[in-house]
Amino acid sequence: MTTKKIPSTIVSPEGTLEHLSAMEVDELTRTKFDHPIYTLFRQCALAVLNAGAQTDSVEDLMAEFADFEIHFVRQDRGIRLHLINAPGDAFVDGKMIHGVRKLLFSVLRDVLYVRHQFDLNENATNIGELLSDGVYRVVRNAGVLRTGMQHGLVVCWGGHSIGTEEYKFCKRVGYQLGLRNLGIITGCGPGAMKAPMKGAAIGHAKQQHEPRRYIGLTENSIIAAEPPNAIVNELVIMPDIEKRLEAFVRVGHGLIVFPGGPGTAEEILYALALKLHPKNANLQLPLIFAAGESSRGYFDAMDTFLRKALGDDIAQHYQLIVGNPEAIAREMREAVTNVMDYRCEQNDSFSYNWGLHIPEALQTPFIATHDSMAELDLHLSREPYELAVELRRVFSGVVSGNIKEAGIRAVRDHGPFQLSGDQALMDTIDQLLQSMVAEGRMKIAGDYIPCYEIRS
Amino acid sequence: MTTKKIPSTIVSPEGTLEHLSAMEVDELTRTKFDHPIYTLFRQCALAVLNAGAQTDSVEDLMAEFADFEIHFVRQDRGIRLHLINAPGDAFVDGKMIHGVRKLLFSVLRDVLYVRHQFDLNENATNIGELLSDGVYRVVRNAGVLRTGMQHGLVVCWGGHSIGTEEYKFCKRVGYQLGLRNLGIITGCGPGAMKAPMKGAAIGHAKQQHEPRRYIGLTENSIIAAEPPNAIVNELVIMPDIEKRLEAFVRVGHGLIVFPGGPGTAEEILYALALKLHPKNANLQLPLIFAAGESSRGYFDAMDTFLRKALGDDIAQHYQLIVGNPEAIAREMREAVTNVMDYRCEQNDSFSYNWGLHIPEALQTPFIATHDSMAELDLHLSREPYELAVELRRVFSGVVSGNIKEAGIRAVRDHGPFQLSGDQALMDTIDQLLQSMVAEGRMKIAGDYIPCYEIRS
Amino acid sequence: MTTKKIPSTIVSPEGTLEHLSAMEVDELTRTKFDHPIYTLFRQCALAVLNAGAQTDSVEDLMAEFADFEIHFVRQDRGIRLHLINAPGDAFVDGKMIHGVRKLLFSVLRDVLYVRHQFDLNENATNIGELLSDGVYRVVRNAGVLRTGMQHGLVVCWGGHSIGTEEYKFCKRVGYQLGLRNLGIITGCGPGAMKAPMKGAAIGHAKQQHEPRRYIGLTENSIIAAEPPNAIVNELVIMPDIEKRLEAFVRVGHGLIVFPGGPGTAEEILYALALKLHPKNANLQLPLIFAAGESSRGYFDAMDTFLRKALGDDIAQHYQLIVGNPEAIAREMREAVTNVMDYRCEQNDSFSYNWGLHIPEALQTPFIATHDSMAELDLHLSREPYELAVELRRVFSGVVSGNIKEAGIRAVRDHGPFQLSGDQALMDTIDQLLQSMVAEGRMKIAGDYIPCYEIRS
Amino acid sequence: MTTKKIPSTIVSPEGTLEHLSAMEVDELTRTKFDHPIYTLFRQCALAVLNAGAQTDSVEDLMAEFADFEIHFVRQDRGIRLHLINAPGDAFVDGKMIHGVRKLLFSVLRDVLYVRHQFDLNENATNIGELLSDGVYRVVRNAGVLRTGMQHGLVVCWGGHSIGTEEYKFCKRVGYQLGLRNLGIITGCGPGAMKAPMKGAAIGHAKQQHEPRRYIGLTENSIIAAEPPNAIVNELVIMPDIEKRLEAFVRVGHGLIVFPGGPGTAEEILYALALKLHPKNANLQLPLIFAAGESSRGYFDAMDTFLRKALGDDIAQHYQLIVGNPEAIAREMREAVTNVMDYRCEQNDSFSYNWGLHIPEALQTPFIATHDSMAELDLHLSREPYELAVELRRVFSGVVSGNIKEAGIRAVRDHGPFQLSGDQALMDTIDQLLQSMVAEGRMKIAGDYIPCYEIRS
Repeated sequence: MTTKKIPSTIVSPEGTLEHLSAMEVDELTRTKFDHPIYTLFRQCALAVLNAGAQTDSVEDLMAEFADFEIHFVRQDRGIRLHLINAPGDAFVDGKMIHGVRKLLFSVLRDVLYVRHQFDLNENATNIGELLSDGVYRVVRNAGVLRTGMQHGLVVCWGGHSIGTEEYKFCKRVGYQLGLRNLGIITGCGPGAMKAPMKGAAIGHAKQQHEPRRYIGLTENSIIAAEPPNAIVNELVIMPDIEKRLEAFVRVGHGLIVFPGGPGTAEEILYALALKLHPKNANLQLPLIFAAGESSRGYFDAMDTFLRKALGDDIAQHYQLIVGNPEAIAREMREAVTNVMDYRCEQNDSFSYNWGLHIPEALQTPFIATHDSMAELDLHLSREPYELAVELRRVFSGVVSGNIKEAGIRAVRDHGPFQLSGDQALMDTIDQLLQSMVAEGRMKIAGDYIPCYEIRS
Repeated sequence: MTTKKIPSTIVSPEGTLEHLSAMEVDELTRTKFDHPIYTLFRQCALAVLNAGAQTDSVEDLMAEFADFEIHFVRQDRGIRLHLINAPGDAFVDGKMIHGVRKLLFSVLRDVLYVRHQFDLNENATNIGELLSDGVYRVVRNAGVLRTGMQHGLVVCWGGHSIGTEEYKFCKRVGYQLGLRNLGIITGCGPGAMKAPMKGAAIGHAKQQHEPRRYIGLTENSIIAAEPPNAIVNELVIMPDIEKRLEAFVRVGHGLIVFPGGPGTAEEILYALALKLHPKNANLQLPLIFAAGESSRGYFDAMDTFLRKALGDDIAQHYQLIVGNPEAIAREMREAVTNVMDYRCEQNDSFSYNWGLHIPEALQTPFIATHDSMAELDLHLSREPYELAVELRRVFSGVVSGNIKEAGIRAVRDHGPFQLSGDQALMDTIDQLLQSMVAEGRMKIAGDYIPCYEIRS
Repeated sequence: MTTKKIPSTIVSPEGTLEHLSAMEVDELTRTKFDHPIYTLFRQCALAVLNAGAQTDSVEDLMAEFADFEIHFVRQDRGIRLHLINAPGDAFVDGKMIHGVRKLLFSVLRDVLYVRHQFDLNENATNIGELLSDGVYRVVRNAGVLRTGMQHGLVVCWGGHSIGTEEYKFCKRVGYQLGLRNLGIITGCGPGAMKAPMKGAAIGHAKQQHEPRRYIGLTENSIIAAEPPNAIVNELVIMPDIEKRLEAFVRVGHGLIVFPGGPGTAEEILYALALKLHPKNANLQLPLIFAAGESSRGYFDAMDTFLRKALGDDIAQHYQLIVGNPEAIAREMREAVTNVMDYRCEQNDSFSYNWGLHIPEALQTPFIATHDSMAELDLHLSREPYELAVELRRVFSGVVSGNIKEAGIRAVRDHGPFQLSGDQALMDTIDQLLQSMVAEGRMKIAGDYIPCYEIRS
Repeated sequence: MTTKKIPSTIVSPEGTLEHLSAMEVDELTRTKFDHPIYTLFRQCALAVLNAGAQTDSVEDLMAEFADFEIHFVRQDRGIRLHLINAPGDAFVDGKMIHGVRKLLFSVLRDVLYVRHQFDLNENATNIGELLSDGVYRVVRNAGVLRTGMQHGLVVCWGGHSIGTEEYKFCKRVGYQLGLRNLGIITGCGPGAMKAPMKGAAIGHAKQQHEPRRYIGLTENSIIAAEPPNAIVNELVIMPDIEKRLEAFVRVGHGLIVFPGGPGTAEEILYALALKLHPKNANLQLPLIFAAGESSRGYFDAMDTFLRKALGDDIAQHYQLIVGNPEAIAREMREAVTNVMDYRCEQNDSFSYNWGLHIPEALQTPFIATHDSMAELDLHLSREPYELAVELRRVFSGVVSGNIKEAGIRAVRDHGPFQLSGDQALMDTIDQLLQSMVAEGRMKIAGDYIPCYEIRS
């Protein structure tokens, strides 16, 4: 279907933005085209209006809808959005699809709210605490936290670019999770971020379970590349990957990792760094590596990499289950129930894992530049926890070079990022990345040109 | 996945059967294994527990679960069902899936309730009225009728055995219907009975529309052959096809027909007979023939058949839309809105089309036997309305010979049904049936051995 | 305020009568003015439309609205009621108050439904069982039975004609019951039938407890004399006092008795007869006599009467709490919780006490005539259980002579009912009745002329 | 009943405070006993826990519960309140009544939220706009604003100290408003602030109308003197009377004034000043003076005063209806419907009257001191609008001297406030105030010692 555009339409807010004060309306309507907030909002809005579309390229999307505009219109009752040349698929008979409208205003809500939540006073000493508090406030403001006992939310990580076989497997796992009344949180895009939600939706429908939660947790710089899939019914936009990762592990009650690319590796290393931290010795954060029979090799490679890099003991921190969606879901259901019981004993919140310690090294944004990548301290002699932190940054940088605007530009202008360290470590990193290239886990479309070079 | 069986389990009722009087419980628990009601209930229960399974053969299903038993257990609080060797797919971690449990007790509700609703006093003169009243009471007892203004329910008819292309097309139409907040009623099985529901489920989710209604309207003798698909969340079981057809046209606000086999032809002729009846001159019953590009031939053949059999004027009673799901849904949405407006003007019920006249000839059960089939009066000289009634019976008989237990047995024992009449008419019937055979619309699996012979 | 009348208005049904089949509508609209069902319905409807009005005299009410008519109007969508000269207080700006409309159609529902529920085949041997089943079906049809665990319903019995002091006390008890999330069931009229509901309404509001249930359980022949008070939001009409009493004790989880007249005495003796029955040895039916300080004398007199008539042991079957609403509610809350726990253990229904044995002697309608009253076997030598049954009839007869149409007419035509038996027993009965006369517990207005004579 | 105290208990938050971030919890738990926020919160909490108690004296209440303490307790899941020596009436069997708990946390919510909403930058030029925005944010944060079309909210003003006759009249008006599905907003205390809510609660129950809104709008310095009555189910605490008045007229859709004291006179003058302002020429703000027959004199006196002070034309801005609750409610229902229609046309918010212009002179807090009272410019030569603004301050000052802590202290220390101006004007003010004294509208208990002196 050729994408139609809706030349001009006005939409009313839904949710928290229905009631704005006169001054809040003023502030919004004064936002100019060239303001960074406008640019960000326009880009995120476009992604949401294209929800379901499959493209890997922010630039393509931006090009196709170069003439898309979004304006704030003041009316006595509050604010409206005026859309020009909006994607036609977001509308039915001229009216915006209700779920899309909700996501659109989620975007606006987060873009507005996030602005001042992470402002750090230059004298601040408790930066980690301040950042954690900000993550909490954003999540709360988005309505993600619910009151009372819940059935549990499972984070599903994995590649946005996976094959049909893997997709079906993820969906079957999602179905089994849904049958067990578990909600799903993912990075909100296609592939392994969509399949578990789709499966869970069927499971929830069969169990007639409410609420049916499919939370997409994304970030400013990635939402255009991975627009929310069609199942997402709650959307949260974090300002960077570190805050997004913190939100994942604090809001979710358990983690399932499906095969994926460097982003998935980053997520695995983030989770393992947490689990390796001494303050998290009593941590309850179930972690399952899940794959269909045909993808068994992926986690074998990952397992090899992790053992080589972090030592064999690392394997006690995850559980690998192959080819059995029911077993995966049953294990996770049990683990989540244990988490709930533990929090009940501890008088902890059911909806937010305050007990988890996240060290500043995992909170501080890692900006992938040629310098920062080159400076990574990649040596096997380091403490496993410290090395995990450093390796997380490696893969974070690769993601940036692959699909984030800033990273792509840097690589285009200055060539691939340069990585160096212990030869053995560099080799195992290289092997893992090569296997991802070979398996096509780097990009949705076209040949992959590496954004990094391993140097010894 | 090999079907596991659950050796023994007890389930509690949900819905109208939660509150039974002591004597009602007594009556149920006295039901013996050899009672026809028990046999019927056991068979329907098995179908529901196999919801989603794809098989065309009652006998296979019955054979696989020959050791399945279902018993009524008396407890002070009411009744329970004791299941022995029940299909494992209906359970999650030992507990019956909530939606399946609801359907299971819908079956029991209807089996019990229907028993005495169509008892006709031998002196009754107003048989048509009595039958219509019974259909209404069954539908009401099943909770299908809702109060107040509604968004509308669309009946989707079409084959249970369709190709991937057609399935996808039906699903896309369902999606567009769902986006327009229309509920779906189908015959409750696979193929064109499932696809529109599946599509609508996505459309409803995107519009966050409630209630999401996917009504399966089936009959005693067919539910085992076409067990409810996984989307059905309301189930009604009628005692025969005539009452089922009446329920379809009185509960639905519009009809969409997708390509199908002889059952679909029966449905088309039923609808056209109604539309040809003089008392229904002002009838509001939108009828759309819908097909993807690749199935255009199907409705061309149907159109040819209908014109040859009933005259060219017949074409004004249906609308054919090919390859444009959005247009189909838009037309239907508009037509349903018109129906609602008309009923509002007429002070008619929104949830039941009392105004529709259904002649006794369409209500009286047609039992397909070699005699009754041979006696059909198939001549082009008959009034179009009368001929439509008769043709409806032709296809009804073919369905019976294909998939209903009694019909299959009759054909196995005595050879194909014999049909005769005007040569030209017989030829066009034959062509239509042959094309269905050629397109594989007769059976899900195996070669089709015709259950009829056209004689001139 | 002078009662206005609404000359003519049409109202639509709400609830179970919204969906009627064509034949059900036919049957209704054929009901003639002179049919007993019409007369009964008209009378009950009038009572409901006068809900809140305080009058003791059926005849006055009937006289004031002698020109009130209620007709069934057929419309395609179903049935409407056409009211002529209806009481104006039931309307706001020309529209019937929603709660009144609901009660009006509850009346119609019960009048229609009850008709055939107690038809006894002349050969029936299990009459008691048949009657119990009928009571259950009426209660179920009225929607009183709810699914799942509930907070509990407390039956409050007591006089319709009580002083301000007593009224306030009942209200305070109701408030404390409401604060403990208990629903209220009463005989649905004024006085001690209204006060606990009023108090509970405030308690429920403060606890923000839902659902707020105020069930009025009345009977055909008494509803006009005791029209539903303004708080009643569920109404059930039983055909006679015996079925009403059975409904009280099976639906309620505990009983509180406030001071009252002969009707209250009848209720006390009914409850005690049940508790004395050997089959109810393990019965869980909490019974509290509750009075304010100023009414302590009432229960002292009752206690004296019960001990003299039934022996001192009878006192272990009730608990008397004076002047402490909080203590009454706390005791009842605890007792109801115990009842719930017991039923849970026994796998009994939470919403209906099937376990309670009600002997036929308490089920068979006692029609108070001069003959039946004269024949009562009132001797202290009888078994306490049997004597309690007989004494229940004494007070039932007095109620009839006081406020039921048939009884009033009989007494007017033939003089007071004659009661005889053991002198000592007759004396204690006489004392109790005299004290009720002295305390003005017999009638709301005017001097009381006894409808009975005690003979020795 | 002697007030019991609960020695020590812990309560969990409900509503917006259920989810607090770690730093928010920290901030709260650092609040010290001697902090003004603590003092304010403790006082307001005490008032809420005494909801329903009738006392006019902050000091008495504070004295009786001098040993009452309220502490913030940190738990991992969030915050708890630890109460010491709390009033026993707020608890049932040791558990705080749900509605009271909700109000308690409303208090905390507002006390915390309001703190920084009205901070004015010293260079601010648009003070009026800033204040209005703050009022809106407080109301929004309290959850008072609802989405979509509503039935309407009626502000009821009038004395907290009124006689039985007047109380019954107010209740009857409330009943008629409730029957018309209107919600009630009052100053949240006893008397004319409680009666309309109580009546409306019965009307709403009869109409089975949801939501049932009884909004108490109070202020820091008055909540202890007029604790929320037992019906209030939404509570908002404003920092001063000017913001409270703004909230009344912006949130309500119409105003009814019952007889009252100087506070009521302040409210009348506030409303009239608004109506006299040229920018509000098209203002839709229905204003009805409502009194029972026996209080007709009150509004005759008020009418005389208003005409003398502001000219005869003032009478066109209000409507006086005596002795007919139904007429009052019918008029208001119609007026509110007109307001809704007008806002719909104007695309205005249904839940907040942004269109209303409130001049700064009515927004700036008037602090009643001997100086500020003496400086009031009370001359008949002034523009009616300006004089209305000034007269509002006169009565505001009297209220302060009567029941606000600061005012009472000032008068105790320095004698009555001195008022002066045109003789004729001073006389009519004096007459009005004298009649209030004579009718006992100044205080609930004891003889009234005037807090003002009229000087010419």
